[in-house]
Amino acid sequence: MSDAYYLRLTDRLRELLSDPHACEEGRLPAERTLAERFRTTRVTLRQALAQLEGEGRIHRSNRRGWFVSPARLDYDPTRDAGFNDYVRAQGRRPRTEVLLTDTRPYPTAAEALGLPADQPFCHIRRRRFVDDRAVLAESLWVVPERAPGLLEGDYASHSLWGQLRSRWGLSLTHRSLRLYSEALPEREAAELGVAAGTAGLSVRRTIFDERRRPVEYDEEHWLHDALCITVELDGKA
Amino acid sequence: MSDAYYLRLTDRLRELLSDPHACEEGRLPAERTLAERFRTTRVTLRQALAQLEGEGRIHRSNRRGWFVSPARLDYDPTRDAGFNDYVRAQGRRPRTEVLLTDTRPYPTAAEALGLPADQPFCHIRRRRFVDDRAVLAESLWVVPERAPGLLEGDYASHSLWGQLRSRWGLSLTHRSLRLYSEALPEREAAELGVAAGTAGLSVRRTIFDERRRPVEYDEEHWLHDALCITVELDGKA
Repeated sequence: MSDAYYLRLTDRLRELLSDPHACEEGRLPAERTLAERFRTTRVTLRQALAQLEGEGRIHRSNRRGWFVSPARLDYDPTRDAGFNDYVRAQGRRPRTEVLLTDTRPYPTAAEALGLPADQPFCHIRRRRFVDDRAVLAESLWVVPERAPGLLEGDYASHSLWGQLRSRWGLSLTHRSLRLYSEALPEREAAELGVAAGTAGLSVRRTIFDERRRPVEYDEEHWLHDALCITVELDGKA
Repeated sequence: MSDAYYLRLTDRLRELLSDPHACEEGRLPAERTLAERFRTTRVTLRQALAQLEGEGRIHRSNRRGWFVSPARLDYDPTRDAGFNDYVRAQGRRPRTEVLLTDTRPYPTAAEALGLPADQPFCHIRRRRFVDDRAVLAESLWVVPERAPGLLEGDYASHSLWGQLRSRWGLSLTHRSLRLYSEALPEREAAELGVAAGTAGLSVRRTIFDERRRPVEYDEEHWLHDALCITVELDGKA
């Protein structure tokens, strides 16, 4: 397959994606139909589809075929907005499911926060949706001493950070983030309804209060095509 | 395969990775040898290896087998350091190859910088290495009016930003970044010596000077397990 032919086919598929009549309910025509329409082989078609999947333009869903991916959500980690706020600010609809709450040690969180390995944490596991698509599986680990009674709250409808601030008077002053691309682990892939090994974006966050006391450690796993990290830097030379 | 068995095998492989005698020159024993040693099937072994690949702990290289991945490079996009500086600061060895230079229009760069679609750019295509592993394929698009004679410079040994500042007196005041995970496109995958579709991290950067004149647009494609984006936020509540 020559580079030029391949790019032309990918471009023609891109045009198809922006045609509201071509993709009923966001679903692409079957591969057989597409191969006939573009007079190409299934092998070449799949390479072009894989290219568009890599760009985050389309995705496979539960073996039901190919779907047009919604625009990526912009997230600026240097700003101080919660999920509900930045999803709504982009005209999208956020939803959260709490999958699990418990209290237990988690050595990874303890190490990140500089606590002993057997330190127990209040653990909240959530799945978050944008416009009814599951895009984020996350585990939050909060130091119990900072927020007594934390797990009695409702973290499907309420922001955890909002509650930490208003109910427990905590500041979330010192935050550090680590972001890297990954292949989604089996558990998170299952929770997000995709195959294990699908490309993902991992975000780890540690939070200390204004007295530098450890507050929270988060592990987030995003679908790779759901998120775009944006950072604006002004005034540095 | 039960979750517990799978996790145990992955943990035992992790121990193997940290044993300097087990992996000669950073190469894992052959899959057949590993399957025998851990008394498991090739299928199960490959699932555990895929998990470690997803975590960025190991990678395949040119069909020569599995290799231990070096630690990810930390990159803080809010700080103002060039590639050579932050690679060396982490005790690693940077190297750069210039693959191509030319002058031509690039509508994507023009749109990002607010210029007409037929605006020509000085284009530099580079491949960058950390400790002799190719980790980054990038294209830099510089507005010719900002830096006359730019393409006569040596951007294998010298920092482009350093030259823009010292030789052309430019400030790189207003920068914005967009980062997202992707499947590496064919061309970049070939340049980095991996299979097309391998997980990658895409970084797009626009740079304006202190008078808000457009200076540069960059497209970077990183190997997914080479980079970790880190951001430290202090003093925000």
